[in-house]
Parts: sequence; C-alpha cells; structure tokens
Amino acid sequence: MTPPGGLQAPPGGDAALRARAARVIPAGMWGHLDARRLPAGYPQFFSRAQGGHIWDADGRRYVDLMCSWGPIVLGHHDPVVDAAVAAQSALGDCLNGPAPVMVELCEALVDRVAHAGWAMLQKNGSDATTACVTIARAATGRNTVLIARGSYHGALPWCTPVPVGTTEADRANQLRFDYNDVASLEAAVTAAGHDLAAIIVTGFRHDNVVDQEMPSLAFAQAARRLCDRAGAALIIDDVRAGFRLHRGCSWELLGVDPDLSAWSKAIANGHPLAAVLGRDSFRSAAAKVFVTGSFWCGAVPMAAAVATLGEMDRIGLPERLAELGGYLRAGMARLAQRYAVGLRQSGPMSMPLWLFEDDADFARGSAFCRAALAAGAYLHPKHNMFLNAAHTRADMDAVLAAAEAGFQAIIAA
Amino acid sequence: MTPPGGLQAPPGGDAALRARAARVIPAGMWGHLDARRLPAGYPQFFSRAQGGHIWDADGRRYVDLMCSWGPIVLGHHDPVVDAAVAAQSALGDCLNGPAPVMVELCEALVDRVAHAGWAMLQKNGSDATTACVTIARAATGRNTVLIARGSYHGALPWCTPVPVGTTEADRANQLRFDYNDVASLEAAVTAAGHDLAAIIVTGFRHDNVVDQEMPSLAFAQAARRLCDRAGAALIIDDVRAGFRLHRGCSWELLGVDPDLSAWSKAIANGHPLAAVLGRDSFRSAAAKVFVTGSFWCGAVPMAAAVATLGEMDRIGLPERLAELGGYLRAGMARLAQRYAVGLRQSGPMSMPLWLFEDDADFARGSAFCRAALAAGAYLHPKHNMFLNAAHTRADMDAVLAAAEAGFQAIIAA
Repeated sequence: MTPPGGLQAPPGGDAALRARAARVIPAGMWGHLDARRLPAGYPQFFSRAQGGHIWDADGRRYVDLMCSWGPIVLGHHDPVVDAAVAAQSALGDCLNGPAPVMVELCEALVDRVAHAGWAMLQKNGSDATTACVTIARAATGRNTVLIARGSYHGALPWCTPVPVGTTEADRANQLRFDYNDVASLEAAVTAAGHDLAAIIVTGFRHDNVVDQEMPSLAFAQAARRLCDRAGAALIIDDVRAGFRLHRGCSWELLGVDPDLSAWSKAIANGHPLAAVLGRDSFRSAAAKVFVTGSFWCGAVPMAAAVATLGEMDRIGLPERLAELGGYLRAGMARLAQRYAVGLRQSGPMSMPLWLFEDDADFARGSAFCRAALAAGAYLHPKHNMFLNAAHTRADMDAVLAAAEAGFQAIIAA
Repeated sequence: MTPPGGLQAPPGGDAALRARAARVIPAGMWGHLDARRLPAGYPQFFSRAQGGHIWDADGRRYVDLMCSWGPIVLGHHDPVVDAAVAAQSALGDCLNGPAPVMVELCEALVDRVAHAGWAMLQKNGSDATTACVTIARAATGRNTVLIARGSYHGALPWCTPVPVGTTEADRANQLRFDYNDVASLEAAVTAAGHDLAAIIVTGFRHDNVVDQEMPSLAFAQAARRLCDRAGAALIIDDVRAGFRLHRGCSWELLGVDPDLSAWSKAIANGHPLAAVLGRDSFRSAAAKVFVTGSFWCGAVPMAAAVATLGEMDRIGLPERLAELGGYLRAGMARLAQRYAVGLRQSGPMSMPLWLFEDDADFARGSAFCRAALAAGAYLHPKHNMFLNAAHTRADMDAVLAAAEAGFQAIIAA
C-alpha cells in the first residue's frame, strides 16, 4: 500500500504534508492525533471520510475503527445530521446569544439522562470536566477532588497526563484512588477529611495501555454512598463512553446516578460540543460559576447534537453497536485461537481494546496493526477503538480479514 | 418594538424560549452571552444573521455592533467563507488526524505574523492562553506569570474573573501589574525574582467597564526588555483584538514582537478555532507539552480560517474597519455635542467602547442602549463593541440614528 519504490508520493500526500507541517508546527503535530504515537506506516493526514470509512491523504481507504477517537458515532456524513447542520447553518451559527436550538438540545439532554435536571454546553471534554469540578467546589465550599490513578479527564494543567509546563499548584487539592478498588476509594475519602468536594470517575475504566474494566457494582455503589455521606459530588466523566453504552449516563446500567456528568465526543457526531449535566441540587451552584467561551453558543453543533441524539434513539444505538461489536469480538477470538496468539479483548463491545499477551514492548500489537492497516483497517495498538452505526457486518468482516493479516504478521515475526 | 399589550409573544419567541430555558439551564443562561448582563429589553435568543445584521427570536432586526463578541469579522454568512466551509465539509471535518488544510492554515498564520515560526490550533481562546502559559513554563523551567490587573484572559480557573468554585492554588504563581504602567511592571518582575516564566498582556487594554487604552510604546518596549533580560516569555493575548487592528500581531503596530501569542475570535469568522503562535526559540518547548482536544483537528473551522485570512487581506480589513469606525466615532462625537451629553469613546476605531460621564450606575448607558435597541441597533453599554467588514456607511448611519434616540432617552430621563 506504500508508493512503489522510486516513485514520488502524490503532491499533497502524507509525506509531503508532513514535511510542510514540520516547518510550521512544533514536531509536525501535537496531541493525541500525532501519528508518531502509532506504529510506523500510519498516515498523519486524512483527506475525507464517509460512513464507516476514512481515506488518508494518499488516497488509501480504511475501515475506520477509531471514529476520530470517539466523536463519530453515527458514521461520517450521517445524512440526518448533515441536513440539520445545513438547515441551522443557513440561519446562523455564532450569534450574540444562543439560537432556539440550544433550548431544544438542553431539553433533550435533561429528558434522556436520569440524574440531569439541567444542562450547560461547552466545546471541549476538558471544558466539561473542569466545569464539573468547579461546580462541585462551588456547591460544597470545599476543595479536594478524588481522581482515579491513570484516568484521563482532559489535557488542561490540572488533569493533563504529561505535566510538562504545569506546576505543582495545578494539581493541588487532589487525592488519588484506584478504579474499582473500594478500599482505596474509602482511604482517599478518609484522607480528604472535611474537605471532600467531589469524586470524579470515568464511565468505565478506559485508561491507556491497560485492559479496560467495567465499573463493578460494589465500586459504583460505594462511590455514591461515600459522596452522600460526605455531602460531596459524584461526577461521572462520560466524555469518552457517553451514549455508546447506554442511552443515558453509563452508570445508569448499574442503577447509580451521579450528581454531575461531563459529556462530549459522540454528542454531535463530530461537531465540536461538550456538555455538563447536573442534578437539581447542584443547579444554584452551576448558576454561580463563570464558565464561558467565544463559541459555546454556536448553534450548528447544537443542531447536530439534536439530530444525533434523535438518530441514536431511532436506531437503538447502544444495542446496535453492542451487536456489531459482539460479532467482531467473537471473530477476533476465533482468529486468536486459530493462530494460537494470546489476545485480550476488553471493555464494552462498542469500544474494544485489543492487547496481546507477552507484548510489554508492543512489538506484537505494532506488527498486528501495521499489517491490518496495509490490509485496509485503521486500528489502534494501545488505545480503545470505537464502532459507529454506519459500520456493517461486511465492514466487520473486512476488519477481521485485515486482522488475519495482522495475526500472520505476528506469527511471521 | 415590543409586542403590543395583550398579545402573546410568538411561539418560540424570546419570552417563551426564556421560560423553557429556565427549566433546563441554570438561571436560564450562563457566561458572557447571558442577557441579564444587559439592560432590560435585550433579547436572549437569536434566530438568524446576515452580513452586518442580526435577528432576534421575535424576528426583530438589528445592525449588529457586537458581532458575536468578536468572532464575526467579515460579516455573517460571508460567501467566500461559506464556500470554503461547504467544500471542506463535503470531504470531512473530524477525522483520525488533521486534513491537509491544517498545514495550509498554519503556513498562512506563520507567514502573516512577524514573530511566528510555528502554530498550534485549539478551540477556545482560553485553550490558547493556557497553552501559551504552559509553553512558557516548559521553556523556562519557571512558574511565575505576570498578569495585568483587570485583564481578561479566559474563563478557566486560573484566569476566570469570577473565582466561585476555584481555589487559591488555581491562581498560585501569579503576580499582578497595571497595564501601561512601566513602574508596576518592573516591580512585579522584581517580585518574581528568578522564577519569572512569562508576562501575559492583551493586545490593547480592553478591560470591562473602563475606558480602553492602546498600549503605550514605553510600556510595550519595557515588557519586551524585561522579558529579554529575565529570559522570560512575552505573551500577547490577541484573542479579542487579533486581526482587527493589524494584519499580524497587534503589537507589530508598535514594532514590538512577543515570543508567544494567543488567537481566537475573528480567526475563522465565527467558526470555533483558536491558535497559539510562537517564536522558533519556543518551538521545542511547544513540542514537549501535551495539549489536545477531541475537536482540535476539525478541518472545517480551519478551512473557514484560511478563507477568512485571505478575505481579510483581499479587502484590507484593518484599514476598512478603521475607516468605518472613524466615521461612526465622528458621528457619535457630533451627536454627543449636539445633545450636550458627556460621552467617552475609547479604544481602536474598529472596537469602540462608549461610556457616559456621570454614569457610575450605568443608568445613562442603559437608557441609551435600550432606546438604540428599540431603534434597531444592537449595542453594549459596558463592553467594547466590534465592527465587521459587511457593515456599510448606511449601517453606520442607521446606528447613528438609533444612537440619536439613545441620546434623547438620556435627555428625557
């Protein structure tokens, strides 16, 4: 799939774009979409996308199992979302205040999420997690926030996993616990004493580079009980998991409702939007904090969100993705057995993570993903992947065919 | 302009939307676009916009002198920007990595801004100012940042003007000085000692509710000299002023180049985008920090930005807005003299702030703006306003006619 030796890459192709980017962007790229975080051979630049597929800047097509790291949940260019976007765009987007669609969206969010009495909207997942913490502190008059070790809550100084350029003070008033470990959570609550403002926890454990875990019922109930006892806020960071596991908050599957929740990623099928939802008891605190941004009232992403939520319900999104993901998981298990390669598949069906046994250096995962990429499937060797509703069984079969090339590459190595 | 007594507001009109919003949004609205920050009678919701005009949810049309608080710089629905948006949207927006247009945009930004050797892109102005501070700390290995009293650099906990829900630690490692006061800046630098990481300063002084000031040459040169002497970063926050005063960084007008600059607002004519630009000497630090967001590689706002920057150059934006703003300022001065009302007009021509003498309680400003609103001009009584390139002399005449109603309201009160 690489250009034949001796031939130039197409003008505007990945290699040419990387060379230009190296001149005008530090190290050529920033953040989680930096292709240097992936095995060699992965493209950095993408030219277009449709449904369950994506094309790189060299024109190669892939079944897209990253879905832009979560946002694409109905599929690229979903026609219902595109129509809603076109209709709102024709009226207006960034105005001197919100458009009527903001009310419609907040009503839809409050109606669908059990704990939600109100909604506020932002642009980044980090905006939403930060606002949750701010509202929790405003409501309780306390400062200490409990965060699970290894959990990702965004890339602002208080939560970035890479502290370069941040200060100790950015992480003041934080204590750590281990996800799904009730004793460690209880110990952190005890350590917080009378200053416990909030426990923040992701919808499920999707830390980088370790097997994913669903929250245990005991852990979820303990988190709720400890917050109730202390008068603190339970915050679910559903930025990554939200809407793919359940129509409402991911912890509704366990019958546990938080006080505040953070949303983004899949909320508007790729349009930039985030949300904070909260219980009525946190409404007055939410009204007192000052959080805002120049584009937070942009109407087009809100129209996209209303359409996205509607389509999610119409097609029964979580069930559909779970069925499709179950088909993929079973197929992967068969391949792993056939090739006698130890494969751990973890997390919800709709957000699979594939890690290989005996692969501390990710040599196996890298060889697997490189071969699968060359065979037309865009996978990730360390991070959970994402299904979208435009994916078909035929797409999953194509992924499994590409995965077979991956297993063969592992065997050959 | 209000509905005749006894008649219902139209369905979906402002009053009905406010009532619905009050149920699902804390206090009915958040942030700087909350209409409760304006005199009674201002609409909260907007239905559409075109060029230099905006329509509220009750169908009333206004000459728009807020331009969405800055982002709308060419005018609502600029045809060239809309065409670029449509073309990129048809290909893809939120992908597994950037589209080629990201390189094109970063090249355009580096080419046009004198100090810029590289660019990074975000969503919010706060993302950009925060990344500047993070990069400055990473580059210097120091923590202390100097911030002008009253300057607005965003709404994250380290910089929000309303500290409810934030902690003392969020504002650790900060010292204050007074804008345009060299002695106070020197004193803050001395107080920072060997820990000075950066001085951050807005493109001009546009603090809320006080007369605007252009930076003095002595102040700008002192900031540059003090940073050079200390090996610290000079950061210009051009989020609000950027591109309206000058084709490049606003301080280029003074011949002073910063090390890092933050941009947003006008960069993409209303599409959600922000940028950090920096000198080559800060490139390696910028490559080390981890800042990212789910939508930061969205290609559509980048395509909008490329088109916006091109159109700015084609029409000679700063000159055009200055000419139009000068016409408005002269007309306002004539009206103030005719009605013998003390009016202070401050700031650049393209971003006027109007404050009345003897108006500590803003009674005059409020009466003025209410009357002007009823006469079809959307103004602000306390915050600087913004012109855009779709405004015409006829629009300015309409604003002046509405302002005349405002002066008459002041006289009548």
